[in-house]
Amino acid sequence: MSRPELPKQFLALTADETMLQLTARRTDAGERFAHPIVVANAMHADQIEGQLDEAGASAAALILEPMGRNTAPAIALAALAAEDPAAPLLVMPSDHVIADVTAFHEAIHLALPLVEDGWLVTFGITPDAPETGYGYIQVGEPLTEGVHRVARFVEKPPRDVAEAMVASGDHAWNGGIFLFRADKFLDALSVHAPEMLHAARQSMDKAVREGARIWPDHDAFAASPSDSIDYAVMEKAERVAVVPVTMGWSDVGSWDALHAISDCDEGGNVCRGDVVAIDTRGCLVRADGKRVALVGVEDLIVVASGDDVLILPRGRSQDVKKLLEAMKR
Amino acid sequence: MSRPELPKQFLALTADETMLQLTARRTDAGERFAHPIVVANAMHADQIEGQLDEAGASAAALILEPMGRNTAPAIALAALAAEDPAAPLLVMPSDHVIADVTAFHEAIHLALPLVEDGWLVTFGITPDAPETGYGYIQVGEPLTEGVHRVARFVEKPPRDVAEAMVASGDHAWNGGIFLFRADKFLDALSVHAPEMLHAARQSMDKAVREGARIWPDHDAFAASPSDSIDYAVMEKAERVAVVPVTMGWSDVGSWDALHAISDCDEGGNVCRGDVVAIDTRGCLVRADGKRVALVGVEDLIVVASGDDVLILPRGRSQDVKKLLEAMKR
Repeated sequence: MSRPELPKQFLALTADETMLQLTARRTDAGERFAHPIVVANAMHADQIEGQLDEAGASAAALILEPMGRNTAPAIALAALAAEDPAAPLLVMPSDHVIADVTAFHEAIHLALPLVEDGWLVTFGITPDAPETGYGYIQVGEPLTEGVHRVARFVEKPPRDVAEAMVASGDHAWNGGIFLFRADKFLDALSVHAPEMLHAARQSMDKAVREGARIWPDHDAFAASPSDSIDYAVMEKAERVAVVPVTMGWSDVGSWDALHAISDCDEGGNVCRGDVVAIDTRGCLVRADGKRVALVGVEDLIVVASGDDVLILPRGRSQDVKKLLEAMKR
Repeated sequence: MSRPELPKQFLALTADETMLQLTARRTDAGERFAHPIVVANAMHADQIEGQLDEAGASAAALILEPMGRNTAPAIALAALAAEDPAAPLLVMPSDHVIADVTAFHEAIHLALPLVEDGWLVTFGITPDAPETGYGYIQVGEPLTEGVHRVARFVEKPPRDVAEAMVASGDHAWNGGIFLFRADKFLDALSVHAPEMLHAARQSMDKAVREGARIWPDHDAFAASPSDSIDYAVMEKAERVAVVPVTMGWSDVGSWDALHAISDCDEGGNVCRGDVVAIDTRGCLVRADGKRVALVGVEDLIVVASGDDVLILPRGRSQDVKKLLEAMKR
């Protein structure tokens, strides 16, 4: 269902609202949070404004990248657009779900004193399985209540290493959610990735602005190295902390992940759209503009969208990649 | 896929040609067979002419019933439309498949002498399973080479009775295919169902004709009793014979039946349309105007047609009825 012109964050996968809308609503502007700064691919500008508007939200700035340069330069653009450079910047991917928003807000609350003091904070998701698709964070010595120094970052591990880390009890998933002062992030960038900071600054200086929309300069941004915030900054900076948190987080990285986080009916099925299921158990069925009828099947993932129908057993949704490759051939 | 306006005979289920086209091609007009007399629902006239034309066939007469009155009156209309009343009339449903046409032609050849002598002949399909969805024919004493008197007709039996009949070796399925002289069928009708014959004759006498198309009179035909040829004639007439034949016959009464008669790929799959299947075994997949992608599934029936997708395990295609009922609710 997701594709370049309509990636996951614009789809209503887990609720009636899209993942972008859920992300915006997670930090509704008001006493606690300011209006969000959104960084996105320029091709999605209308979609973002439309979806935010629908959710009763609006962006303080909508920064439209001329091309992707990974997360570190994207966040640099946002940090440079922050009105108050000393204000804490909460960085969230727009295609994750967090079921327990209260727990998330509490984690933010715990992190704030250190953030104000200049620390770069990441949120460590309590792992419930030895996933090999995520990076891990080893939780180090406690700094304040609920906040720890990061002992080390671990790249996506092989299975046995993942199992050992989960068993150890002192490792968390790196969920890609961060909290830091904009100026402190830019400071770290000036030390560990000065070319990137230069490119981001140049592209914002020469940016075209129209209302909330900001188009960073194409050539200046193109000159930026492409790197993730983890590699470029977090793994290198000195004062990096982690808040371990259990908050029903998922990056909804597969249909299996979606089934795992969704509420099931009595038969263990998760059905969305026009679905008729008889004597059916443990299935995830998604019918967009189609009618899907099932009898007597178990543990299947069925996705009907546009002119495509996808069928595979639960537990094999990583094999969607194999299908895409086969289709290309 | 089949529905009132597009029943099974107009679909290409078993081959690139529709079942009507396969039926017409089974008795190509020439030395041996005359052009067919087609009896159908009036709403299908254009479809029939179009499909026959596409198959290089054409009807001697296309009799368009104003309403359904079951098979006996329909065949009566055809018998009344036969140019030569003494000519043998081969009666075939247009939604059956016969894989071994040579065996079928041989069976016809064996039956002809008795047919010319006035017998009503039916073809008895050698059963390969104790099906409870078919009527059975007990094969009696031999009359000529390969042709036997019918000992008795048996209605759709319960399972144990079906098993006993298949085990007996002297029972065949009633495939609903008949061969008799038009005049002899009408004679039998005059004895066993005179009202039906009267109604058929009246409706043909007052019929509207235009080229090959014949519209029997509505009110006259409506007055006919509704009955099958088996009940109305075959079970009652005196000189009724059966030709037992093994000819790869199927009425394609379910998706399971279709899978059973289709050629499978290496994985035991039968795929038609735009299908991408990886690590998939024993499936019947039908994609009309959709793309169906499967990974890692086994023994499923998947039918995507129009805006509908049907999924069920092989062996349960009778449960399609349950679905239709659930959908109506």
